[in-house]
Order: sequence, then structure tokens, then C-alpha cells
Amino acid sequence: MPLDEGRTVSASNEGHLLIGGCDAVELARRYGTPLYVLDEGRVREAMRAYRRAMEESYPKGRVLYAGKALLTAAMCRIAAEEGLGLDVVSGGELYTALTAQFPPERIYFHGNNKSDEELDMAVQAGVGRIVVDNEGELERLERAAQRAGRPADVLLRITPGVAADTHSYVRTGQLDSKFGIPMARGQALAAAKRAAASPWLRLRGYHSHIGSQITDLSPYDAAVDLMVRFLAEAQRETGVAAQQLNMGGGLGIRYLDEQDVPAPDAFVRRIARRVLARVEEAGLPAPELLLEPGRSIVGPAGVTLYTVGFVKRIPGVRTYVMIDGGMGDNPRVALYRTRHRAVLANKLGAAPAAGPVAVAGKYCESGDVLIEELHGPEPEPGDVLAVFDTGAYNFSMASNYNRIPRPAMVLVHQGRHELMVRRETYADLVARDVVPSWLAAATGGGAAGGSTKPE
Amino acid sequence: MPLDEGRTVSASNEGHLLIGGCDAVELARRYGTPLYVLDEGRVREAMRAYRRAMEESYPKGRVLYAGKALLTAAMCRIAAEEGLGLDVVSGGELYTALTAQFPPERIYFHGNNKSDEELDMAVQAGVGRIVVDNEGELERLERAAQRAGRPADVLLRITPGVAADTHSYVRTGQLDSKFGIPMARGQALAAAKRAAASPWLRLRGYHSHIGSQITDLSPYDAAVDLMVRFLAEAQRETGVAAQQLNMGGGLGIRYLDEQDVPAPDAFVRRIARRVLARVEEAGLPAPELLLEPGRSIVGPAGVTLYTVGFVKRIPGVRTYVMIDGGMGDNPRVALYRTRHRAVLANKLGAAPAAGPVAVAGKYCESGDVLIEELHGPEPEPGDVLAVFDTGAYNFSMASNYNRIPRPAMVLVHQGRHELMVRRETYADLVARDVVPSWLAAATGGGAAGGSTKPE
Repeated sequence: MPLDEGRTVSASNEGHLLIGGCDAVELARRYGTPLYVLDEGRVREAMRAYRRAMEESYPKGRVLYAGKALLTAAMCRIAAEEGLGLDVVSGGELYTALTAQFPPERIYFHGNNKSDEELDMAVQAGVGRIVVDNEGELERLERAAQRAGRPADVLLRITPGVAADTHSYVRTGQLDSKFGIPMARGQALAAAKRAAASPWLRLRGYHSHIGSQITDLSPYDAAVDLMVRFLAEAQRETGVAAQQLNMGGGLGIRYLDEQDVPAPDAFVRRIARRVLARVEEAGLPAPELLLEPGRSIVGPAGVTLYTVGFVKRIPGVRTYVMIDGGMGDNPRVALYRTRHRAVLANKLGAAPAAGPVAVAGKYCESGDVLIEELHGPEPEPGDVLAVFDTGAYNFSMASNYNRIPRPAMVLVHQGRHELMVRRETYADLVARDVVPSWLAAATGGGAAGGSTKPE
Repeated sequence: MPLDEGRTVSASNEGHLLIGGCDAVELARRYGTPLYVLDEGRVREAMRAYRRAMEESYPKGRVLYAGKALLTAAMCRIAAEEGLGLDVVSGGELYTALTAQFPPERIYFHGNNKSDEELDMAVQAGVGRIVVDNEGELERLERAAQRAGRPADVLLRITPGVAADTHSYVRTGQLDSKFGIPMARGQALAAAKRAAASPWLRLRGYHSHIGSQITDLSPYDAAVDLMVRFLAEAQRETGVAAQQLNMGGGLGIRYLDEQDVPAPDAFVRRIARRVLARVEEAGLPAPELLLEPGRSIVGPAGVTLYTVGFVKRIPGVRTYVMIDGGMGDNPRVALYRTRHRAVLANKLGAAPAAGPVAVAGKYCESGDVLIEELHGPEPEPGDVLAVFDTGAYNFSMASNYNRIPRPAMVLVHQGRHELMVRRETYADLVARDVVPSWLAAATGGGAAGGSTKPE
């Protein structure tokens, strides 16, 4: 596989993979495997590309990093430094941002079923906007604001009724969705009136999000058209002009060489131009435009390193290369059948083997095959496998399946490397276990000693 | 939905669901939701059913609980008290068992890619058996035993080449598998000779596992036939009679009323009789028979409680009932498209509503719909939803997706209830986050304050 020009990876003189100027083989040795590696330069570059495109194509825009792709204290710092806002979708994400001192006024709080506790937390923290998902939340938020004695700034999440061409699990703009208030039958308009009339809510605008890992931008055109039409209607009916229009995120990334994916720049410009044209036609003031990229910022910046264990050859059938991680640290392959590019990080220049191999994980499940066909040099025990584009939704969706500790994550930048998430320990795994009092007295051995008949 | 006769659940006079004699609505109030509830009586009953069937149908048998279905300190205690052995598949599961004082000699250590560290840990702890998955591991285990100065007792995991009728992710007995040593082309026989000849290994027998959630028992017949034929061949070639034959686990459970699933008793008897018949035919001594149930022991004993939030009605399309958990605590629905029975725990006697509703989780993903069609009374905010058969592979596969803390688990028995896993806290979520030194000095705010143009 040629090393992608879009990456800040390269090859050392020894034929080792370099990520952010750090030798991947050395990182694996030093921090152990499996290891998530995040390339800070690549993250910052993507954030800047979004901001630059926004500055150049729209009078007043704002880029929010969608934290659900990958959120840790270090990621909050990077997003803050780059001047981005932050999307959070739960009390836990909000807590992470607040403890990392992310400026609360730049936080947008999403979620289709926020609890009262989460709403209180958000109102008390003074988050920039609460993106209200439904009518029930509108009422509960009103009460939360009243409890706090502090009006809340809100966007309403609207379901425009647009179906993006992506995996059904991550398609969110269609009418039949748990998310948002349907435009259909005047539901969204009624909610806007309700919000505009409330003394405890300040209606700042509207939000729409059509899905995730989208590689064909045309559904955004339809979404923009519908949302601007709604803005005009809502302004007429409520008397409140939308200050903000949030068109969501969802830009896909290239997981395989043959995939053709628009650049962030093209994504921003297309939406920006369309919004400008439509608001001009409608005679509306241009609202601040917000976009919420997540995957396209951190996805390509992440590489997961594994150590190769046994190589199982089944003559005439398949060769399995076992690695020391799998569906626990990268559940996306089993869940969405995602495919990944990968290389042996210690054999970049080596001659290719006769045929492809399957990369199988360590988890006790046949579905734990991370890569169906890996081409490249002959894999041997001890090799370091680097799986690309694992920055988004890998750490954030990782589990302790099989009670395997979750990996560490190291941040690399210009040859420097430091932990940004420490590796889970065995002690962490049992830290929440409690033995109920009526079991605690047990001696731990049954009379039969584990066999139904004595040996 | 009629309350299943196989369950230890019932209805209180108020129409509340009782689990292990405890009022589910009261549990939800007391411990919060989402809440995993495990019915100890149901677990013990299943364990006893397996042991009883084994005692009655085979001269010498042993039941091992497959910990990957659900392993905590309390589960280890219960399995120990019931006289079962324990399957573990990783260092983390082994650590859990050892810290819970599970007798090491009753532990069987599985896994397709055990690390040297894990092998050392197992050998030093003196686990009962190490189930060797491949030839590479055989060599590494030999060295581990030598390092410890203590021979290891092993079973060899054999791939018989039987394809069970189940989800491809959990089908493991076919030739094209990452698991086990293929019987084909004499590979398994060569490994048996290698093990028998080693001064550091004691070859105790063989293991086979054809898959998980299996509801048609006939593939076990084929697996038994092949394994006994292999036992005869291996005894001839190595001179060592197998003391143990481990036929694995994999019995499915009934997730839906219309499913027809064999009882543990039928599973054990069918395999036991077949093994007895085949070894007699082959003129072999009857080996100790081992079986490894997991899901069928804990699956039906688990109920997850959620609180209903907003009820979103999309006229003419669908009604979504939002709950406060979802794909983070029950990833199996999105992963395997499992379906679950569920009831509103506070409305058992209430009249059914006009049509079904969809139960949507709290996670920011359209795939997070836990139940496509729930029939029953009209759901309202504050209702407690009880989702059945969530004891296996829910806690064990749970994630912190969206940085949502993982639920608590409460053990219930004869009206008593106590925590067996405490709820994760927000502080737990950030406990592993580290800010690299070069970011730590940051003030947290970019010059542009989050907007590309000043407001």
C-alpha cells in the first residue's frame, strides 16, 4: 500500500513506519500494544482546513468538533487551542470538557434523551447552546432553566426528512428517526413558537444532521434548502430571526484507497454557498453557519498498533494472522463491516508475500476478524501491524469484552510522544465488582470440588 | 407478553414486575437506571440443571461456566459454590477469578492468541488446564512451563470442521476458523504427538467448540463423532489415552416467545449419550466429559431496567419510546440484530395500547434502537422498561460510547438485593485521561474564541 499523501506518516531509513515523526515500532516497544496513536499535526491540520474553508466561503461561521468521535482531556485542549467549539452528547462528555477547562460558552449540548440531571448540569455550567431534540425536552429544559434562575440558549434540532446514502445505523435525517422534531405536519414550527414564547429559553436557531460517514454531498443540498425554507417560515411565525443555522456534520473519510471522498474544504464550501444563495433568495439575514465535523478530523489521524502473534496456515483455505487486540478496541468492523488499510510497520520496504492473509483478533468470537484480506510482506510473530484511520469511534466505542483491558493512547507530534490515555489495568477491570454480603462469607469451594463425581 | 414459566419473575399485587422476589420498580428507584438485574436463583438453578443432567447421563462429567458471558467477583463465587469449573479467555478474566478466590485448579484457560505474559500468569497460578489453541502456543507454553519449573496440564483445541447453524460471528467449529488446530491434513495429530512428547506438558485431552447461540443440536452429533474418532487415532499414535473430552458450549437461549430452544438437560443428555456410544464402539475408556455453558446459565437470569423518557410520535410513521440506555449497555442488538422481549415493569396488568412502539436508546446513533416493535400498554415518561434475557454478553460487551457511564448490576435473591457491580461515575470516565506536557501549559482558549469572525 502506498503511504497516503494526506497523512503525516512516512517511512524511516530502516523501513519503519513513522507517525508524526515517531517510529511506530519504537512506540509499540515503549508503550506496549495494542496502542492507539493519534497524530496531533494531522488533527490540527484538519481543524484548520475546516476553519479556513469557513472563513473563505461564509461571512460568519463556526466549526464545532463533534466529541463523540474521540473525546479525552487532550482532545479538548487541542480543539480549544484551535479555536473550535465542541459538541457533546451526554453528561459524561460535558464532564470531560468541563474538567479539561474547555470554555463552556463554546460547548453545544446534543442528545435525543437528555436526563433532567444532564440538563441541570448543562444549564449550571452555562454551556453555549443546548440543542433541544424534542418537545418533551423543551418543557424539561424550561423547568431546568427556571430552577437555575438562568435562561438557556437553545437551538432546535429539526428532522428535515432527507435520507443520506450511508449505513442505516448512522443515517439520521430521515423522517423515521428517533432524532429531532419533524418538519412534517407543522411539528417543528409549533416547537419553535413554544421556544420563542418562553421566558426561560432564548431561541437562537436551528440544527439539522443528516448522518455520518457520508461521501456523496448532494443530500446536504436538499437539507439546506429545507432548513432555509423552515428558517423563513419560523421567522414569519415567531417573529424571531434565526441567529444560527447548524447543518451538522457527517463528512465521511477514505478507509480504502479506492474510495473517493470529498475534502473538508469541498464539504464546507458547498454547504456555505448553498446557504448563502438560499437565504439571499428568501430575503433573510445570513445566520451564523455552524458545522460539526468529528470523524473527518480525528479518523485519519489515528493509527492502531498491534503485535502479531501466531500465524495460522490452513492449507488451501486461508491464513490467519493473530493480533493482540481486535473487536474490543475496534468494534466498528464487526458492527458496520468497515474495512481498513494496514501495513506491517516494521517491514515497509519488504517484498510482498504470495497471497493475502486475514487479520484475526484476540477476542473469543469468529466475528473478530479485523481485516479480511491484508496484502503485503509475509507476516511473522513479533511484527507490528499498523491499522490506519482508527482515530474516530474506536477508543470511544471500545469495550472490555473478554475482560481485556482497553489500550493506551499516545499523542505524537513532530517526533515527540506522550500518553494521552493510560492503559487500563487488571485492577481497573475489577474495581467496580462488589460481592453481596450473603455471598461474601462463602469459602469459595463447593463440596463436589468442581466434578460431579470424585476423580 | 406472558411471563415465562422458566423465569423466576412474577407480578406483584400492584402489577409490578418481581425479579427474584424484588420489585423491579423499587430496584430502579433505589439503584437508578439503566440497571442490570441478575437473578441469583435462576443462575443457580441453571447450573444445577447442567450438573444434574451430567450426573444422570454420564459416568464422570464436569460442568464449566464460560465466564466470557458474564464475569464478576460475585459470579465467580456463585460458580464456585455450585461446584462448577470456570472457563476464562484472557488474563483479565483469569485475574478476576483469582482475585475472587476461585479455586485455580478448576480454571480452564482458553483463547486463540494468549500472550506470553498470560501464559506465565496461568502457569504460575496453577490453573487446572490450559486449552492450547495452536502449535505456536504449544511451543510458547512449553517455555513458560519451563520458566516456572512446573509442567502444565493441557487440552488441545481441535477444529473438527463442523459448521453450526448460527450467526457467522459466533460460528467456530468450521475448518476456516481462527480457532483451534485443524483435524484436516494431520495437523491436530502432529500437535498431539508434540504435546505428548514434551517433558513440560501433560496432555490431558482435547477440546472442541462449534459455536454460540446454537438452537439445533444436530451439529454436536457430528462433532462428537469426529472428536471420538480423533481420540482413538491420537491414542494409537501418541500412546496417551485422553482423560478428558471437552465438547465446548454454545447452547442458545430463547430470546423470543416463538423460538424453540432445547433445554440444558436435552443438550447434556444428547452429547453424553453420543460420546458414550462412540467410545464404546471405538473400544476406548470413557474420558471425563466436559461442557462449557455460558449464555444458557446467565442469559435468562438477567433483566435490564430502563426509565422511559420522551415518547416521540411521528404520525403515520412510528412511535419512538426513548430510554436512558441502549447500545452502550446492550451492544448485541446492533451487532447481531438480536431481538428481546420486554415489558413495562410498572404496568403488568394494564390494557394494551393500539399498536407497537419502537424502543430507542440514548446513544447518538440511529442504530441504537433496542426493540423494533414493543407491544403492551401505552408507554409514558417515567415508566420502567424491563428488557429480558440480558444476562449474557451485555455487561461483558458494554462500552462507554458517548462517554455514558456503564450501569450498575444488582444481584437479587429471595427478596434480597445488593450491588454486584457499582455504577460507573463521571470521574471514572476521565480517570485514564492524561494531558501531554506540551499541551498542559495551554490556557484553553484560542485567539478567535471559537468563531472564525468576531461576533
